[in-house]
Amino acid sequence: MVISMKLGATREQVEHVCKRIEDFGYKVHSIRGEERVVIAAVGSGDVTHCVESLQAAPGVESAVRISAPYKLVSKQYQAEKSRIRVDSATIGGDDFVVIAGPCSVESEKQILTTAHAVAKAGAKMLRGGAFKPRTSPYDFQGLELEGLKLLRRAREETGLSIITEIMSDKDVELVAEYADMLQVGARNMQNFALLKSLGKAGRPVMLKRGLSATIKELLMSAEYVVAHGNPHVVLCERGIRTFETATRNTFDIGAVPVLNELTHLPVILDPAHATGKSALIPPLARASVAVGADGMMVEVHPCPEEAFSDGAQSLTIEQFNTMMEDILPYIKLWKDVRAAAALARA
Amino acid sequence: MVISMKLGATREQVEHVCKRIEDFGYKVHSIRGEERVVIAAVGSGDVTHCVESLQAAPGVESAVRISAPYKLVSKQYQAEKSRIRVDSATIGGDDFVVIAGPCSVESEKQILTTAHAVAKAGAKMLRGGAFKPRTSPYDFQGLELEGLKLLRRAREETGLSIITEIMSDKDVELVAEYADMLQVGARNMQNFALLKSLGKAGRPVMLKRGLSATIKELLMSAEYVVAHGNPHVVLCERGIRTFETATRNTFDIGAVPVLNELTHLPVILDPAHATGKSALIPPLARASVAVGADGMMVEVHPCPEEAFSDGAQSLTIEQFNTMMEDILPYIKLWKDVRAAAALARA
Amino acid sequence: MVISMKLGATREQVEHVCKRIEDFGYKVHSIRGEERVVIAAVGSGDVTHCVESLQAAPGVESAVRISAPYKLVSKQYQAEKSRIRVDSATIGGDDFVVIAGPCSVESEKQILTTAHAVAKAGAKMLRGGAFKPRTSPYDFQGLELEGLKLLRRAREETGLSIITEIMSDKDVELVAEYADMLQVGARNMQNFALLKSLGKAGRPVMLKRGLSATIKELLMSAEYVVAHGNPHVVLCERGIRTFETATRNTFDIGAVPVLNELTHLPVILDPAHATGKSALIPPLARASVAVGADGMMVEVHPCPEEAFSDGAQSLTIEQFNTMMEDILPYIKLWKDVRAAAALARA
Amino acid sequence: MVISMKLGATREQVEHVCKRIEDFGYKVHSIRGEERVVIAAVGSGDVTHCVESLQAAPGVESAVRISAPYKLVSKQYQAEKSRIRVDSATIGGDDFVVIAGPCSVESEKQILTTAHAVAKAGAKMLRGGAFKPRTSPYDFQGLELEGLKLLRRAREETGLSIITEIMSDKDVELVAEYADMLQVGARNMQNFALLKSLGKAGRPVMLKRGLSATIKELLMSAEYVVAHGNPHVVLCERGIRTFETATRNTFDIGAVPVLNELTHLPVILDPAHATGKSALIPPLARASVAVGADGMMVEVHPCPEEAFSDGAQSLTIEQFNTMMEDILPYIKLWKDVRAAAALARA
Repeated sequence: MVISMKLGATREQVEHVCKRIEDFGYKVHSIRGEERVVIAAVGSGDVTHCVESLQAAPGVESAVRISAPYKLVSKQYQAEKSRIRVDSATIGGDDFVVIAGPCSVESEKQILTTAHAVAKAGAKMLRGGAFKPRTSPYDFQGLELEGLKLLRRAREETGLSIITEIMSDKDVELVAEYADMLQVGARNMQNFALLKSLGKAGRPVMLKRGLSATIKELLMSAEYVVAHGNPHVVLCERGIRTFETATRNTFDIGAVPVLNELTHLPVILDPAHATGKSALIPPLARASVAVGADGMMVEVHPCPEEAFSDGAQSLTIEQFNTMMEDILPYIKLWKDVRAAAALARA
Repeated sequence: MVISMKLGATREQVEHVCKRIEDFGYKVHSIRGEERVVIAAVGSGDVTHCVESLQAAPGVESAVRISAPYKLVSKQYQAEKSRIRVDSATIGGDDFVVIAGPCSVESEKQILTTAHAVAKAGAKMLRGGAFKPRTSPYDFQGLELEGLKLLRRAREETGLSIITEIMSDKDVELVAEYADMLQVGARNMQNFALLKSLGKAGRPVMLKRGLSATIKELLMSAEYVVAHGNPHVVLCERGIRTFETATRNTFDIGAVPVLNELTHLPVILDPAHATGKSALIPPLARASVAVGADGMMVEVHPCPEEAFSDGAQSLTIEQFNTMMEDILPYIKLWKDVRAAAALARA
Repeated sequence: MVISMKLGATREQVEHVCKRIEDFGYKVHSIRGEERVVIAAVGSGDVTHCVESLQAAPGVESAVRISAPYKLVSKQYQAEKSRIRVDSATIGGDDFVVIAGPCSVESEKQILTTAHAVAKAGAKMLRGGAFKPRTSPYDFQGLELEGLKLLRRAREETGLSIITEIMSDKDVELVAEYADMLQVGARNMQNFALLKSLGKAGRPVMLKRGLSATIKELLMSAEYVVAHGNPHVVLCERGIRTFETATRNTFDIGAVPVLNELTHLPVILDPAHATGKSALIPPLARASVAVGADGMMVEVHPCPEEAFSDGAQSLTIEQFNTMMEDILPYIKLWKDVRAAAALARA
Repeated sequence: MVISMKLGATREQVEHVCKRIEDFGYKVHSIRGEERVVIAAVGSGDVTHCVESLQAAPGVESAVRISAPYKLVSKQYQAEKSRIRVDSATIGGDDFVVIAGPCSVESEKQILTTAHAVAKAGAKMLRGGAFKPRTSPYDFQGLELEGLKLLRRAREETGLSIITEIMSDKDVELVAEYADMLQVGARNMQNFALLKSLGKAGRPVMLKRGLSATIKELLMSAEYVVAHGNPHVVLCERGIRTFETATRNTFDIGAVPVLNELTHLPVILDPAHATGKSALIPPLARASVAVGADGMMVEVHPCPEEAFSDGAQSLTIEQFNTMMEDILPYIKLWKDVRAAAALARA
């Protein structure tokens, strides 16, 4: 921790702060600058509590922790990227994994048609919502159990691994029975009750970044899942909320190299939710491969116009096929970059 | 709905859109402008679905709904402000309601000392967290049931109504047994499973605005609770996330008159969470009364430095007493404004 | 400065950083923590350059300055609030100063009617744009010299002090000849060529906060004007750009107490530009007085519907009169607060 | 324009609005919906003024223009991408143009070393600031004329085209004498006096997007330059200001396909300013090529640690060489994509 005292802080205030730091079990280094006193605290203890306490102490301008607040998800804990096995697919390994499927599971025909098509085009996982988080209580809320059963059916027919959203800690067991991977939506990224229960889910988790979550907060939410017993977490950047309205959100592609410096967890990108417009997906798909993400998630619907939700950002099957062809040479380059990096490490 | 076709949209595309609109049960008004075709759809039906469908139709530039997506919480549904009874207190009535108490319930002594002090100074409700949403899994997570019992004890001793946070739909029954009002935290504002369960809670609900939630989304979340059976909802603006870092969040005081134009639900302000600094609370408390909010929430701790959480934004009991004296003349003016408005309506 | 080395930084890297710090004339305090080395640099020198240099040095995680980057505008430089004389008005003194007038000067009749009306209602200064910054090159760009002459005419007739916007360093002399105070618009807050030239303008300056400017950047821009010779600067918060679209911008009222802690410069509020809607101004005007701003700026037009610009946020003369009556009791309280604070200092 | 009347707007208010629309020369289409009256105005006239006027009219909920506010820069005005000739380089043509060089021109040795190195590695243009916009008045403000002369020297020695920043309309003639392309910095994107003067500069202009400028505002600023006589404009996305602090700004790569749909002007990317960290540049450079930008700007310095400004985001010459090799295969794919698109158009 580094604590800056206010200009004009009294000797008593400085001494009080030093005493508090020692009470928390840290060693004090006090430095008298030209303008103010700065105190460094060295050691180990309950950092968060100590920092918060000092922020409330008289005469303190700021108290800042230096060490990262996450541990298990950090690069320091594990230098090499985690390979997350999701049934037949592996995220974080030697393949750029494409996850595709409709926003919502709507009918047997819709999900099976889509599943067969995306499998043929090269997707490794099928997405589809059975429990849908909708802004309005009057909108389609998903087929629930019926939707889960249809996803299982699609899995049996195509061999695709299944990912679907989980919205409440109450439903963990149910959803884990049907899906290969559980998705936490952006609006639940800090639903801590849910995160804790996913620690015991026995299934890998895809954690989507909240609309206004910092990268540090995303990592802290992942830390919740891991600290509660489940190390199989994949992160997903899906656009953040900014002032710009030309796209639904702003696609923060820079999060990929930032996360790659901080964590061993794989990172995938979701340009569809980030922008809300299907026409923007193909160029952003190319960029997603080039930037070095571990995979990508896109929405595909046999007839986007008839989708119960998110039609505007869904690709048709034909558009998806074209996109997959488009990114093929980029995926080849991606494999070269990975291989070169592996070689450099060896 | 107003649908703008792209420049150069074909006649077939326009006809297709008109057909779709009619299929959804609306009447079509098509207008050929200098540059492009604009179509208005009139009638009633499943607006959201229709709008989403049209956004995905070929040749469509944009499809926008004109009517508000919320109904039960709107001023059109009920012109007069709702009075929300919370045991002995009423929010939305003739009093500016001050809710005070510590961030977390930490011990019997801490909560009882605080409760007696804030009651004496004029607070009508006691806040205190038993289940704490913390960014880090390693931070204090609340006393849980033990905390709820301490709150009940404080209620018995002081007569203050109790508000405390609820973090999972699993806990609704338990928390409702101990608290007079259930608080949904900012990070759970779009935890739809929780919102639905609160429709059946039998207790009034305080819904805090999410860090990056628009005012429209806040109202939609309130609509969830009301549509699921519970009309007793109070809204709380507690700061939004912006680029500014001088305060923890940005206190969006303008949300009060905006909400007063749109909804009959009462609105309270939380300047402590909005800014994160106790020194900023007194002037913002004065502004909160002056702008016409229905009440205000502040954090008070006998010794902020020793708080388990949020010490930096907590007032001491002495500071709280001073603040309450400071805002007294503003509350008098507040009552004059209310009385004048009531007279004008009569 | 506090420099945190990366985990695993080598001894050579630490030594190199220490050497660099000493080269810049600072003394080094190196602290070896559990995880990493932290270095504090004490003394005085070219902080910015030193910090930027260290940020680029190998092995450095972060380099942060502790001291504020502004000097002349800081509370440390001058504890007491500056009183800025603007001809007959004084901002930062014993009066809450209301500045009113149309967005643009449009005609002799328009500006004179408005000027007489706002003077009668209690405004001390007249605003009106002669050079208009417009997003579109096709929109009304202002009457320019003709507008300045009309403002002078209004000044002669009413005794109001005149404030008008300046858009280029080329125009400083011209505008300073006609106006009592020069306004820098939000979009020019970091037009450094303009700021430098205002150091020599011989007129007080109203510096509006940029749409996405931090409070620190606002103070740095004020420092430009002061450092170039002109200490007569007033700051104006006029809304910042956020994700919320219910208002044009978000009114950051918390900036007032934050600025009052950091600077001796007066601060005024502009709720009209902050929200873009005239109906929201009266409650926010009350809040602006209550929070302790030094004054307030509003747009008034004899017929907002016929305004050449910003009609939607302009009050009619009648609405302005009502608002002025409304805030009268709040201004009385404001004077009590100021008097009490003066007494406390004495 | 589409005008939505408030719920409960009176017949007089609707009639008044219709009358106003006709006064502005438009034809009225009035549509009575279930809830409210919506009015469409068709024709041509002074849209902005009419919209603003209606927003201020009684009974109006909202008034929105449908047509884009920019004309000359739009795809409708010119379908094919503009090729901007900058001396020996062409932006918007068959080459992905890399612009490289130091943040500031600091010395003859520094600029010449850099220029030779980047030319050798494949850059086509040299950047370097002679007039520097700095947040603090105490920081290095650039070598000014001396810097311009050194840039000319570098141009003579290497054949690279020169781009440098212009900060005031006063300096246009001077800078245009030395530079091949004039750069408008992010903080001056809405310095309308400067934009107007660049219409007459006789040099192509690089317009950087403001920190909180929407894409529409960026296009409007470009429209200023074009409408004042200079069609040779290139747009540059360089990061927008958001809540995220892990990077200095957020790199809005989605702006590229959005702009490609709206305008014929070329778009380049600047990942260095967007993120502020040199380590993030290589992956983002790959993404910048893959997304289909017309070029890219990076900062290169012989010794970033000794840079007078922006060292932390500058590549060393060696890092730049590696990056250029890295992106080579992506540039090949880029050319394939361009060629395929050209073929598709033909």
